[in-house]
Amino acid sequence: MNLLIYDAMVVTMEEGDPWFCPGYVFIEENKIKAIGKGRPTEKFFSRAQKVIKATDKLVMPGLINAHNHAAMSLLRGVADDLPLDKWLHEYIFPIESTFVNEEFVYWGTLLAGWEMLSGGTTCFADGYFCEDGAVKACVDLGIRAILAQGIIDFPAPGVPEPEQNIAHAEQFLKKWQGYSDLITPALFAHAPYTCSASTLKRAKRLAQTYQTFLFIHVAETNWEVEQIKKEHGLTPVAYLENLGILDERTIIVHANWLSEEDIKIIKDTGVGVVHNPESNLKLASGLCPVPDLLSKDIPVVLGTDGPASNNNLDMFQEMDKTAKIHKGIKLDPITMPAKQVLEMATVIPSDIFKLNTARLKENALADIIIINLKQPHLYPIYNPHCHLVYTTDGADVETVIVNGKVVIEEKKLVCVDIEKIRHKIIDLAVKIKQKLKSPDAE
Amino acid sequence: MNLLIYDAMVVTMEEGDPWFCPGYVFIEENKIKAIGKGRPTEKFFSRAQKVIKATDKLVMPGLINAHNHAAMSLLRGVADDLPLDKWLHEYIFPIESTFVNEEFVYWGTLLAGWEMLSGGTTCFADGYFCEDGAVKACVDLGIRAILAQGIIDFPAPGVPEPEQNIAHAEQFLKKWQGYSDLITPALFAHAPYTCSASTLKRAKRLAQTYQTFLFIHVAETNWEVEQIKKEHGLTPVAYLENLGILDERTIIVHANWLSEEDIKIIKDTGVGVVHNPESNLKLASGLCPVPDLLSKDIPVVLGTDGPASNNNLDMFQEMDKTAKIHKGIKLDPITMPAKQVLEMATVIPSDIFKLNTARLKENALADIIIINLKQPHLYPIYNPHCHLVYTTDGADVETVIVNGKVVIEEKKLVCVDIEKIRHKIIDLAVKIKQKLKSPDAE
Repeated sequence: MNLLIYDAMVVTMEEGDPWFCPGYVFIEENKIKAIGKGRPTEKFFSRAQKVIKATDKLVMPGLINAHNHAAMSLLRGVADDLPLDKWLHEYIFPIESTFVNEEFVYWGTLLAGWEMLSGGTTCFADGYFCEDGAVKACVDLGIRAILAQGIIDFPAPGVPEPEQNIAHAEQFLKKWQGYSDLITPALFAHAPYTCSASTLKRAKRLAQTYQTFLFIHVAETNWEVEQIKKEHGLTPVAYLENLGILDERTIIVHANWLSEEDIKIIKDTGVGVVHNPESNLKLASGLCPVPDLLSKDIPVVLGTDGPASNNNLDMFQEMDKTAKIHKGIKLDPITMPAKQVLEMATVIPSDIFKLNTARLKENALADIIIINLKQPHLYPIYNPHCHLVYTTDGADVETVIVNGKVVIEEKKLVCVDIEKIRHKIIDLAVKIKQKLKSPDAE
Repeated sequence: MNLLIYDAMVVTMEEGDPWFCPGYVFIEENKIKAIGKGRPTEKFFSRAQKVIKATDKLVMPGLINAHNHAAMSLLRGVADDLPLDKWLHEYIFPIESTFVNEEFVYWGTLLAGWEMLSGGTTCFADGYFCEDGAVKACVDLGIRAILAQGIIDFPAPGVPEPEQNIAHAEQFLKKWQGYSDLITPALFAHAPYTCSASTLKRAKRLAQTYQTFLFIHVAETNWEVEQIKKEHGLTPVAYLENLGILDERTIIVHANWLSEEDIKIIKDTGVGVVHNPESNLKLASGLCPVPDLLSKDIPVVLGTDGPASNNNLDMFQEMDKTAKIHKGIKLDPITMPAKQVLEMATVIPSDIFKLNTARLKENALADIIIINLKQPHLYPIYNPHCHLVYTTDGADVETVIVNGKVVIEEKKLVCVDIEKIRHKIIDLAVKIKQKLKSPDAE
């Protein structure tokens, strides 16, 4: 379908001409075919099957959430304000071992995907188990995703025998590679302290064979750093480099506790880094030294982490926190200006994941969001980039287009019946609450 | 008007029975007359002029924003990501000296009040100049407010001769005290480095005479602490104690740089402290040691600060940031649990400002908000307090009641025509942009 959006404030995220108003975007099939200032000529109107007049609206690339465990939306808020080990061992792990299967992952990812699309996220990277369910949910929703099957040296949902973890992951890649334009199947090795050296090396080799991405949690807590140093005599980053698993298709997640030498390795190997400020603060894990990495041109991108440790998936709020927290820590208000933070949720992850989205330009894939500016907190506008980072939030998004197709229209999910999601979610949550039998549970 | 809300999830913020579902609240005139679990008896239905069936909705006390410069909504985003002195001296001060008058304050406060009400804030404390305009805006909107006339030893909007600042402030108190149930007129001495000792003492005496509150920015930056030490040989807090201006009706704002001795003075004098995390981080001023103050039972409350340094007025986001940042700094996930943070935006400020709002109980003033839970990020619910702090945001608020009167209904402002606000705001912003002639301005 050809789609014309006009009379909009257009934020391109391109170099040179970052924004203009009014402007238009013309989409043919799944790509942007024209973008320009002023009113489009009549030919665009006649070629469009759908026309959106976007007066008082802002058009920009969809946001990319670079780290999630989407199905954990079903565990949102199940156990907050607790010490990490209690959170994991008394709540998250027992619930996961009882409930997580492909069906759980399907419904949990539907819920999370509905939330992400509603909030202007058009693409996300996920790492979890039973990811077949996540593939199906994303295809049903029409959201773009890099879906990474979990690998861990413990019995896991869908992989009761750890020695099958690599074989299971390979089945996943084989099954879904090339299946949908929207889906990039990938791998997620849980962490250097939960996967053996052999597992990590085999996981990387498998990722290389399938030319896909390997995600791994690294240096999330100081405890982990001390643990890996004790066991291997190296920091987690140096240990992974030593194993030969760091390159441009490896994405390290968190990277909160880094030495100078670690930063050098990250720079030299070309790995991408995912910063998850809300989760890191909420779990009190530490915080990635983002300004230091960015100053060395290391590609740092933003993620929400899973909904159980955040507890929402709003990338606008994640951008706001990123900009503010690092200013606060550095005691420097110039650190991490708004446009740089926007890039961490758009063009940088698009480049890392080789997506060709996140810039409004000819021949880019059409992952586009439209924000309603007619709201009290969005008056007046002096600088759109600052406005998007410091003022806007996910609820301001009105229309969402992924791969040229409208998936959220006037705030309504187009492709999946939300009543079906709601009933299933409520039903699953009742069962989880029964298991918890906690006095705080509803 | 009598109003019945039923079939709701009710979060009372009371001790003992903090929440239940389903439940009801019955409002008579401006007060809560009954609250209970289950379905209300028929007498409530027959006595109610308006009935709200709140299935899948959450009812709670309205939030209190304890520090704002509301009219600066017109300067939202006018100059972000700049060093503090450039921000103040090249943007904020020149714009204020050109534009700020009673009309500017009226429209800026209308815009900010519209935003605050829409996001579930039913009461705010403001400090600015030409506050006559703020009084009129708040009365027109139907929002509760503590409005503090600014006092500073420099020429200020509406007070061109600094020696008139106290007399001008007294006129303000005289004019508005007792004028409306919604409005508490008060005083705002700008800071220890912009008001002389004599001005500060006279301001406090005036506040005492009128039995009202004195707000003051204190220890916002380390520069200020060094400055006051150099000039007076004391920290700002000790200096103010020495002047005799600290007591239970003095509210110190920011308090980012405190010594152990300062904390002791704060405790002993009974002053309230306003924490403004987003503004403090964005301006990179420092951060109040909130957990240390709370552990000593010092009443700490939350504010957004002005919209030019935030850049929105969403108290849900402010609560989220408060809970997360202090966990992150302390590296302790148990620090500042959700319920405690909720109290900082409800019961604690209600007590400090002697409001009798913020607890859903019989005979409390009816400042109540209703949140729509039928949204993807709000499923499922395990613990409402955590849900309100970590997941909800202002856009989820659907209905707002202040002093028993519905002021936001289905997200629409009831008492003021928003088109009138929009046109005036856009008009003023165009003039501000013309003055700035900045390449970044629209």
